Amino acid sequence: MVQQQYSSKLLENIVNQLSRLPGIGSRSALRLAITLLKRDVNESLQLGEAIINFRKNIRRCKVCHNICDNDICHICGDNARNKDIICVVENITDVMAIEQTMQYKGVYHVLGGVISPMDGVGPADIEIASLLKRIETNNVSEIILALNPNMEGDTTAFYIFRALQNNKELKITTIARGISVGDTLEYIDQLTLGRSIVNRIDYHK
Amino acid sequence: MVQQQYSSKLLENIVNQLSRLPGIGSRSALRLAITLLKRDVNESLQLGEAIINFRKNIRRCKVCHNICDNDICHICGDNARNKDIICVVENITDVMAIEQTMQYKGVYHVLGGVISPMDGVGPADIEIASLLKRIETNNVSEIILALNPNMEGDTTAFYIFRALQNNKELKITTIARGISVGDTLEYIDQLTLGRSIVNRIDYHK
Repeated sequence: MVQQQYSSKLLENIVNQLSRLPGIGSRSALRLAITLLKRDVNESLQLGEAIINFRKNIRRCKVCHNICDNDICHICGDNARNKDIICVVENITDVMAIEQTMQYKGVYHVLGGVISPMDGVGPADIEIASLLKRIETNNVSEIILALNPNMEGDTTAFYIFRALQNNKELKITTIARGISVGDTLEYIDQLTLGRSIVNRIDYHK
Repeated sequence: MVQQQYSSKLLENIVNQLSRLPGIGSRSALRLAITLLKRDVNESLQLGEAIINFRKNIRRCKVCHNICDNDICHICGDNARNKDIICVVENITDVMAIEQTMQYKGVYHVLGGVISPMDGVGPADIEIASLLKRIETNNVSEIILALNPNMEGDTTAFYIFRALQNNKELKITTIARGISVGDTLEYIDQLTLGRSIVNRIDYHK
């Protein structure tokens, strides 16, 4: 597309800003700006303020690094949750996904990323030290490594496992790998299918 | 998807606000919010302010109703443009599209919509009265109706034509309908192909 000639600096500015967001090109950004123009002025003010307030005032839970509005997130602050079990995840979206299953009653630790030498992310760049300290200073019986099943996730899980392997009282688990509900055996990758045979589940147990 | 349990009111607020935009669902909105979280805080402040400033301070050109930062847009204020010819369009994006062709040196009139009884938009809801007054009080030799080739566009064009048909000194034209560059005759709709034969262009002219 030829460089746009915007009739307004304000329009040019909003289009440039919106198109820096992932998945929004300059055409979509222009369409969004025109939508805002057609709607009530308060809607734009609320949107702008929501963005500013979110980034300015959002905080990280001092315990698990989940995002929250206070010092401690609602999960860490909930007395009904089992503080002995920590589920280690990459991002806050993983916390949301696991919470939605309603199958987990422990607490979390959000790493805020995974070890990825290609992207220049080392162990010191994510919340691993705080996890180790948390395990050391609290009465933790189990950590569940719930990282994504890829190179970076596996590397990070292995790094954490190595750092904790001398702690014989701590149970270290990972979420089960295997075939998903609705999968078709014929089309599953060999690695997953192979592992799901090796790690087969005994009905009698 | 089950109703999300957000760990933060600020997060819930930004997701709700972003997902009111067209084409952005709650999942995309969450992804955008997390992207903002990973980026520099100033980027979010700039985005929020761009949205607020745009909607708060944007103005309409007093002559053609194109959006601009001042009383008069850069096209109406340009002495090199031919003020005798007015191109009537639905939206500011149409102005941009025509400007990009670099084939037009007249001025514009942005209706801000088209007549659409189904959506409750009548002639009084769009900038038709101001167009008629503009033609009446200025020395206009031609108006080009450059509306979209659909029911609403045609209705609006016809309405304007009827209102001006007694002005015998005014030339009223519409942009050419026909086959587009790159079209394949076999797949063109019958109406367009039929019209392009009826309104065929003489090479000798």
